[in-house]
Amino acid sequence: MSGWAEWFAAQRAARETAGLQRALRPRAAGDDLIDLANNDYLGLSGRPEVRRAAAGAALRWGAGAGASRLVTGTTTLHAELERELAGFTGRPAALVFSTGYHANLSAVSALADRETLIVSDAHVHASLIDAARLSRATIRVVAHNDVAAVRDALSAAGGRRALVLTESVFSVLGDAAPVDDLAAACAEHDALLVVDEAHGLGVLGDGGRGLLHSRGLGGHPNVVMTATLSKSFGAMGGAVLGSPALIDHLVNRARPFIFDTGLAPAATAGALAALRVLRAEPGLPARIHERGAALADRLGVPRSAGAVLSVPMPSPQRAVAAQAEALAAGVRVGCFRPPSVPDGISRLRITTHVGLDDARWAHAVDVVARVVESRPALV
Amino acid sequence: MSGWAEWFAAQRAARETAGLQRALRPRAAGDDLIDLANNDYLGLSGRPEVRRAAAGAALRWGAGAGASRLVTGTTTLHAELERELAGFTGRPAALVFSTGYHANLSAVSALADRETLIVSDAHVHASLIDAARLSRATIRVVAHNDVAAVRDALSAAGGRRALVLTESVFSVLGDAAPVDDLAAACAEHDALLVVDEAHGLGVLGDGGRGLLHSRGLGGHPNVVMTATLSKSFGAMGGAVLGSPALIDHLVNRARPFIFDTGLAPAATAGALAALRVLRAEPGLPARIHERGAALADRLGVPRSAGAVLSVPMPSPQRAVAAQAEALAAGVRVGCFRPPSVPDGISRLRITTHVGLDDARWAHAVDVVARVVESRPALV
Repeated sequence: MSGWAEWFAAQRAARETAGLQRALRPRAAGDDLIDLANNDYLGLSGRPEVRRAAAGAALRWGAGAGASRLVTGTTTLHAELERELAGFTGRPAALVFSTGYHANLSAVSALADRETLIVSDAHVHASLIDAARLSRATIRVVAHNDVAAVRDALSAAGGRRALVLTESVFSVLGDAAPVDDLAAACAEHDALLVVDEAHGLGVLGDGGRGLLHSRGLGGHPNVVMTATLSKSFGAMGGAVLGSPALIDHLVNRARPFIFDTGLAPAATAGALAALRVLRAEPGLPARIHERGAALADRLGVPRSAGAVLSVPMPSPQRAVAAQAEALAAGVRVGCFRPPSVPDGISRLRITTHVGLDDARWAHAVDVVARVVESRPALV
Repeated sequence: MSGWAEWFAAQRAARETAGLQRALRPRAAGDDLIDLANNDYLGLSGRPEVRRAAAGAALRWGAGAGASRLVTGTTTLHAELERELAGFTGRPAALVFSTGYHANLSAVSALADRETLIVSDAHVHASLIDAARLSRATIRVVAHNDVAAVRDALSAAGGRRALVLTESVFSVLGDAAPVDDLAAACAEHDALLVVDEAHGLGVLGDGGRGLLHSRGLGGHPNVVMTATLSKSFGAMGGAVLGSPALIDHLVNRARPFIFDTGLAPAATAGALAALRVLRAEPGLPARIHERGAALADRLGVPRSAGAVLSVPMPSPQRAVAAQAEALAAGVRVGCFRPPSVPDGISRLRITTHVGLDDARWAHAVDVVARVVESRPALV
């Protein structure tokens, strides 16, 4: 295998030179670090009622779903979660997937084919980019949040079915999409707007119902919502939410749904329990924005529309050094480096957490501020 | 949205005319049906030690991994599972994914690019087909299990990096791949052979170590193994197994790994517990073959190399009717219909289960035999 071994070595050497080599660092249970790197913004993953629901489902149903959702992998738990997710977000129907990636791959690849035009925001998540590639549609990438460019692209669709891909809150820059204008543009051109609410569900809108719900787009016939159950919901899995006809189409046509084992019962029950906590405590998401705004002001960076705050750093190496400095002080923060950034600028990635008590949050903010302030001026 | 609504309706009408419309049928916990449709061949999903391990992990770690494996989504549980999986299959290293689909998408799309040649068996799983498309490599599909055709295709690679895609046991026809000859061909041409052991792990080889291990290919430098943790292991997730350099490459380059939340702790612990049961009871997989051979002989169909027995039916409608008949008698069987079959022939899909006691297995076999014998002669 000399050719392949050489290729692996050369690729690794190039990453090391660029400061982009990464390795997995397993964490132990119950370490005492404050974790501002994970996406469990609401602290629901570790809530006693969520842990117990997940554990109870594993005891009752076993460790796995056993088969594809279409064979025998659909349990009454999945159906219950789908009903409650649809009700919560104000969408007519929902379908649960193993991951958010599967949800995005499925929605796009089952709706688009060689005859379709896909208009994609330049900053969408890797899963939507991969989904568009997989569909073999014609892909037109437009500038970030540029509604006029989307309209122009749709005008040139020439009668083809067309999809527009965006996120409600973008994962790197933390800004929101102009979903009202995009939905209006799609309605005019009979296109479908696919909005990934990975960072919107549980964070934006009334009680965390998402950006689409907050703009009255819950039932909009031209809007398809996708989401993940592994961020604010603290579990695992993804979902697509839209019309019953859309869901029926995905069940029958989406290969990453049909040819995948169903989401495990523990994750399904965990997400359902998290949704119920959120319903019972509708004030939780607002606390993300309070804490996040104060943190952004303290760091002198723009406030985020969601729970992820991005702090630009002069180089990937400096970002990694700052991350290590925070870790040494007991606070884990994330780090965006190429290829995870749309513009090549490395950043610290700090998530606002409302599961921490005031004292721990204040301590974490102090550590982050110190680490960020010690960075050299940006070039 | 009239255009899209019309399109959904037309697609559904076409499926209904062809007998291919499907719907989800949620199952309740603890129903008394005998389930020969799921892939929990060894009955490990419901073993007390597996259920308890999954439940314990949910209580200890929470319902989700919280972030990407590269951020803070890697726990010591993941590392432990990877170590034991590699040891069990005789491979140098392993990497765990959220699903088998993610594992296949990652392995292929991180190894292949526009400059690569992919030679794919005509019967590989949807996830490998999607993976090849995603990579944008040149794809050459060769006849099923045709080693000469693989050699010819590799000879024409002209110095490009090349991958060959196959499965150890094919999911629909239940036959095995000639992995020795394929590995030899790949070694000669400095190509990598990617073998999906989704239906081989836990089923074939010494104690269920898989087909590659049984052929002495565990450490072969030209062989990459992928697997799922949701079939014989009864949990959820997938894995890629190979050299440390390969795993390092995937951690750094595989988008469906990097941009996905880690496998939930409950599923990770469930898979690990299942692996340990299998180690402690190495005679389990052999019982699949005993029961499967007897069932195949009784039904008059060829024996399967793995745990899935395929029984051809004259039409999708007849397959569905036979499935309903078995269900009415208390036995759930699966059904392959287009697009899940490589040749357009619908089949009953019956999995051999060793978790059932002799009396229940004998009853299930009687029901299946009655349903199959009542089918009209094949045209």
